[in-house]
Amino acid sequence: MATDKAEQKDNEIIEKLKHAAEEVVKVAKEKQNPKIKMPLRGLSNVYFDEKDKIIKLGDKQQTRSFFNIGQAKKFMQTFLIAASCKELIKSGKTTSIRDIYYNTKHTIGDTDENTFDEQDESDPVIEDIEVGFDALREELHLFANSKGSMVGNLTIVDSGDTIDLRKMGSGGWAIPSICEPHIIQFKNCESKFVLFVEKDAVWRRFNEDKFWVKHNCIILHGQGVPPRGVRRLLRRFADELKLPIYVLVDNDPWGLYIYSVIKQGSINLAYESVRMAVPTSKFIGLSSFDQDRYKLPKEVTIKLNDLDKKRIQEILKYPWFQKKDWQMELTHMLEKGVKLELEALSRKHISFISETYVPEKIARKEWLE
Amino acid sequence: MATDKAEQKDNEIIEKLKHAAEEVVKVAKEKQNPKIKMPLRGLSNVYFDEKDKIIKLGDKQQTRSFFNIGQAKKFMQTFLIAASCKELIKSGKTTSIRDIYYNTKHTIGDTDENTFDEQDESDPVIEDIEVGFDALREELHLFANSKGSMVGNLTIVDSGDTIDLRKMGSGGWAIPSICEPHIIQFKNCESKFVLFVEKDAVWRRFNEDKFWVKHNCIILHGQGVPPRGVRRLLRRFADELKLPIYVLVDNDPWGLYIYSVIKQGSINLAYESVRMAVPTSKFIGLSSFDQDRYKLPKEVTIKLNDLDKKRIQEILKYPWFQKKDWQMELTHMLEKGVKLELEALSRKHISFISETYVPEKIARKEWLE
Repeated sequence: MATDKAEQKDNEIIEKLKHAAEEVVKVAKEKQNPKIKMPLRGLSNVYFDEKDKIIKLGDKQQTRSFFNIGQAKKFMQTFLIAASCKELIKSGKTTSIRDIYYNTKHTIGDTDENTFDEQDESDPVIEDIEVGFDALREELHLFANSKGSMVGNLTIVDSGDTIDLRKMGSGGWAIPSICEPHIIQFKNCESKFVLFVEKDAVWRRFNEDKFWVKHNCIILHGQGVPPRGVRRLLRRFADELKLPIYVLVDNDPWGLYIYSVIKQGSINLAYESVRMAVPTSKFIGLSSFDQDRYKLPKEVTIKLNDLDKKRIQEILKYPWFQKKDWQMELTHMLEKGVKLELEALSRKHISFISETYVPEKIARKEWLE
Repeated sequence: MATDKAEQKDNEIIEKLKHAAEEVVKVAKEKQNPKIKMPLRGLSNVYFDEKDKIIKLGDKQQTRSFFNIGQAKKFMQTFLIAASCKELIKSGKTTSIRDIYYNTKHTIGDTDENTFDEQDESDPVIEDIEVGFDALREELHLFANSKGSMVGNLTIVDSGDTIDLRKMGSGGWAIPSICEPHIIQFKNCESKFVLFVEKDAVWRRFNEDKFWVKHNCIILHGQGVPPRGVRRLLRRFADELKLPIYVLVDNDPWGLYIYSVIKQGSINLAYESVRMAVPTSKFIGLSSFDQDRYKLPKEVTIKLNDLDKKRIQEILKYPWFQKKDWQMELTHMLEKGVKLELEALSRKHISFISETYVPEKIARKEWLE
């Protein structure tokens, strides 16, 4: 089943890439100027969809044509990488975006000109192809670095191997970069919710304390800003298993950014949100009210610096933080003038976060959305 | 068995910590100046042991006494953290070094003085305790961040869970920070060697190509400089399973540093080498001779910058790089004036590294030691 689906998806992408190339050849033979059209990426074409509650790409288009001195190189690069992806998909292999850069890098003829000089030239072209052909990077068989791990009441199949996430010891299963349904399938799942933890050290606390056994759930982390694999899994947990997603991050602008990326997607890669963002995810903390609520001493707080304050002012204006309780949360953070890390809860006792804080928050439905 | 050993180790460390504290109390009651002696850390007390082939701490000692304005705070901090570790060990839990910082941070009496202001004050105290009490951080129940993952022909037991590393899919088992024998045990192992790969994206290539099935081995990575858990596992593979360890890194000063840390330990944490370094490990590449050997085009190389050149000059002088073949390797790198990343081999084809490069290197015993 999974393999059939994978093949079908692969063929679909190959057809799209081939079709575009054939069009170019056809136009060239007619002695016209070959062009490709693709959605414009970047801030000017990004908006917050109030209905779907995610950040989306608008419908502004850009055209890239061959007979244009400013666009010819990009045009060449686009088809060079598209061709390389086509071969990759055909071979059934996946590779890294750095590999693709080296794989397509060469000196053109007898010139001193390279197809690419640095990877920061090939990465945006990959993003162009993703948007232009409506194919996730993972569907082009490309991966980024992987981060994060997971345990919980769930069995998965990864590349044909059945993996019981209830028996992963202290380490957990390492979350790969490509978590598409044709590679990873969900099997038996008793879990009632998913807890995403910002930091691996804090995740380890939850694992060691068997939080996922006691509370029947899945726990995962992404070592900071979650990579694509982790975000895709969260989305699939919400969509396919209908599980609530709770996000636990530091009480600082960075933690809010992580929550925001999970919930509505990022501004930079707005075109991904449709398949990566989890608009139902819930922020369970840390909240700027927690210091008083849990009587944490002043010395475990950290003063907001000027950059923090500036970031909070910006966040206050984001359309997706306009709800009254979010405005209160953010204003209160500015008023208190401090941030609070997850580890600060260890001042109570080291398992306070897993035995008291999170269970109470969930039981009392003390979260923000 | 494992639990008994763990308990024995725990009691041993607790006794050491208690003994030191009791000594201080005794001396204080005698109205004398309480002191603790511990090996001096830092460059002036580090040397390369030619016999054991690892970097070691010398026998210079430092004394920290209570009635000394410059030492009183450090003295207090040392016992504060030691006490916290003792409680931690008693509770059977482990925690992060950031947690310990928050856990022991408080304002002293009615003063404005904190026990610790920043984590960079508590981390060195932890290192002092490690050296002073001859206890690895892991034995104090403390962990750092974890990185890296592993698959291969090996079954392990982690915290009581049996994990078959032959069935870990594309992700692998996430390597935890604490890989001591009382937490992780090795079971069935058919593997004939271990391949450590610097980068996770390249590791994924080896996993996807089932290199470990075809060549009967274990493959693991540490996302750059390997963290303590990965280093400890490598050492245990060499010691307990008598497996050769092959190290595959970029051909640049950073790659050489990674190899060097694995093989003889780091200068900064010299006291760890005795239990972390793997003096038998072999460098299988990339070598500065590989560009010519494998006819790689100029455009996949990267020019050495001034810092690279300076680093190579330094490495040339390290006692552990004095062998003739190492001097040739390093001198040749300077002469070529370029570095080479693992991904550069993808210019041949994307599986060249796993299907040709590494198998050939191992078959021809083309490595440096």
